[in-house]
Amino acid sequence: MAYSEADRQGREYAMRLMREAGLDVTIDLAGNIVGSRAGSDSSLKPLVIGSHIDSVPEGGNYDGDVGSLSAIEVAQRLQETQTRLRHPLQVIIFQNEEGGTVGSKAITTGLDEKLLNLKAQSGKTIREGTAFCGGDPNRLAEARRAPGSIAGYFELHIEQGGTLEQQKLNIGVVEGIVGILHSEVTIEGFSNHAGTTPMDQRRDTLLSAARFIEKVNQVVTSIPGRQVGTVGWIRVQPGAYNVIPGKTVLGLELRDLDATKVETMFHRIRNEVKQIGAMNNTTFSFSEPIVTHPALTNPSFQKLIDATAKELGLSTRVMPSGAGHDAQEMAVIGPVGMIFIPSIGGISHSPKEFSTPSDIENGANVLLQTVVKVDRAN
Amino acid sequence: MAYSEADRQGREYAMRLMREAGLDVTIDLAGNIVGSRAGSDSSLKPLVIGSHIDSVPEGGNYDGDVGSLSAIEVAQRLQETQTRLRHPLQVIIFQNEEGGTVGSKAITTGLDEKLLNLKAQSGKTIREGTAFCGGDPNRLAEARRAPGSIAGYFELHIEQGGTLEQQKLNIGVVEGIVGILHSEVTIEGFSNHAGTTPMDQRRDTLLSAARFIEKVNQVVTSIPGRQVGTVGWIRVQPGAYNVIPGKTVLGLELRDLDATKVETMFHRIRNEVKQIGAMNNTTFSFSEPIVTHPALTNPSFQKLIDATAKELGLSTRVMPSGAGHDAQEMAVIGPVGMIFIPSIGGISHSPKEFSTPSDIENGANVLLQTVVKVDRAN
Repeated sequence: MAYSEADRQGREYAMRLMREAGLDVTIDLAGNIVGSRAGSDSSLKPLVIGSHIDSVPEGGNYDGDVGSLSAIEVAQRLQETQTRLRHPLQVIIFQNEEGGTVGSKAITTGLDEKLLNLKAQSGKTIREGTAFCGGDPNRLAEARRAPGSIAGYFELHIEQGGTLEQQKLNIGVVEGIVGILHSEVTIEGFSNHAGTTPMDQRRDTLLSAARFIEKVNQVVTSIPGRQVGTVGWIRVQPGAYNVIPGKTVLGLELRDLDATKVETMFHRIRNEVKQIGAMNNTTFSFSEPIVTHPALTNPSFQKLIDATAKELGLSTRVMPSGAGHDAQEMAVIGPVGMIFIPSIGGISHSPKEFSTPSDIENGANVLLQTVVKVDRAN
Repeated sequence: MAYSEADRQGREYAMRLMREAGLDVTIDLAGNIVGSRAGSDSSLKPLVIGSHIDSVPEGGNYDGDVGSLSAIEVAQRLQETQTRLRHPLQVIIFQNEEGGTVGSKAITTGLDEKLLNLKAQSGKTIREGTAFCGGDPNRLAEARRAPGSIAGYFELHIEQGGTLEQQKLNIGVVEGIVGILHSEVTIEGFSNHAGTTPMDQRRDTLLSAARFIEKVNQVVTSIPGRQVGTVGWIRVQPGAYNVIPGKTVLGLELRDLDATKVETMFHRIRNEVKQIGAMNNTTFSFSEPIVTHPALTNPSFQKLIDATAKELGLSTRVMPSGAGHDAQEMAVIGPVGMIFIPSIGGISHSPKEFSTPSDIENGANVLLQTVVKVDRAN
């Protein structure tokens, strides 16, 4: 977990590997580890590759680590083959990705006070954690990089879903990172005695919630595409065998690469609740939705990744990333590209998370060759 | 609440009223208040009337109190009119009805160790509370009354549902107290990332729960009758916006006057879950159901209550009691009758619980006249 003793040890280990790969290692003002390798043309903007090494509690060993270690391996390989790139190369290991892409956000759009004061999983605030990582929370403004200041950012990551494995494909060419909408839905009815209140006189909010959950599924699956919709939590009041739930609150999440589609789904779902509520005299209300906008990857980078993978004899498909990544923050300051490799069983954020050594090797090779090609082309 | 200081004060107040009504007041070994009035024929078994005065937390002023105070009023009226019944009359105020019809159970089927050790809402165990009420927890075996030892038991109570008020009726003739089935239902699937797991690969247990809740409602409402079915509580794991719920546990309750119908509904619901689970690869399991059997009132008593109400110019309907009452325990040792009066808005176990003074007067008059008639007839 970010800002834990294990995080500190992991960061030290990664820095040692980076130095062994010939990188000049520093920690930026936001607490990110930056390993630099000079290019032959000092007038060019840097090419950046990287990911994170922090994990969720009870997480696995591949989410973030595959991309971070592969980026170091790219530098190592360039050193071993004495390949000089035209662009400066930076390998960045971003701090606290799991707590809200903190490190990458810090150097792009910046961190606000609310986020800095938020307590991370480790118990430290993000402000304290940033200092713990060697950053300076009082100089974060200086940590920010200007839009247009990088030649490109590439990130290799495990898919965290089961599509590549199921379709027996080697490489996912990420077309973008989906936008996310969260809204808290409150259903109000009346808590009555479950023994004495006839079925046709009930204002049962859990029954309304059941119809709502089914409707969310219907709306989301009735449109072609890869959009997803989830009700992941629910609370009922008072919550006893013998009392009709008079109030139910639940969490709605919608994701898609297309912000308009997310909006449309939310609109359609909201339009359905009047009818659901009318069935048993309950009322629905939605909290102001919290929206993260989608971040698209660069179309030329997509083509380059796809072509590079195919040259290496690997099968590919273009796909969205359903999860958030540091690449979505980096997209604010320059063109980004993302490479996915299969997650066995689609399992992630679990100790059961797994990607095979050969899939990881494939991903690292695609990352290396893509960087070399971009360096020559731009 | 039973065994609280307010309960003690309420019991003292009731005992004073009972003495003023000419009753000989004692506390039995189970902690129930018993007010006795001699009959003219000492060979006859007693007629018993009563209810309880304890309440749920955040409860109202009518549940139990209407029946208890009306029973005292019956004794008062017999004294004022110098009416001598043939049977001995006993007015009983049962202790801790809301905690599981404790006082009435103690003198009929008896209390087991598990119940005696259970902590009541007041914080005292039922054993401690029984002593607090003046009973002797070590002599509870002696508190029990034998089957056939009473001529009959009558209880007046508020309906706690909205049927009488909605149908503009004065008196409910209770045909019985419904049986109750409780079962804990566990649904198992898989907790996956809500962003990266496509809709058709999800094992979402909350979606299965939604379909189950709708199905419970369908099964219960598809049969003619007054049966009810409720899912009153639900818990999902892990319970976050961005994780598909891998496990859901919920509480199913079914009630009806006919034990076979309860069983049939449970059977039909269990038969549906295979199909629901198959829709998204989730599995259902049910805990061993906890069943309280229905208690029927005496058919002659029903007719007598109905005829008595009509003679008083009151409208009636025969109906089940969806809630539990001391009468269901007393049915073990003799014939019982129950009289309902309207609950405004069907609200109960709430400070908003209300019955009008004239409805209470009607109920007390029916109770008095029924007792007088039974006394003459039997």
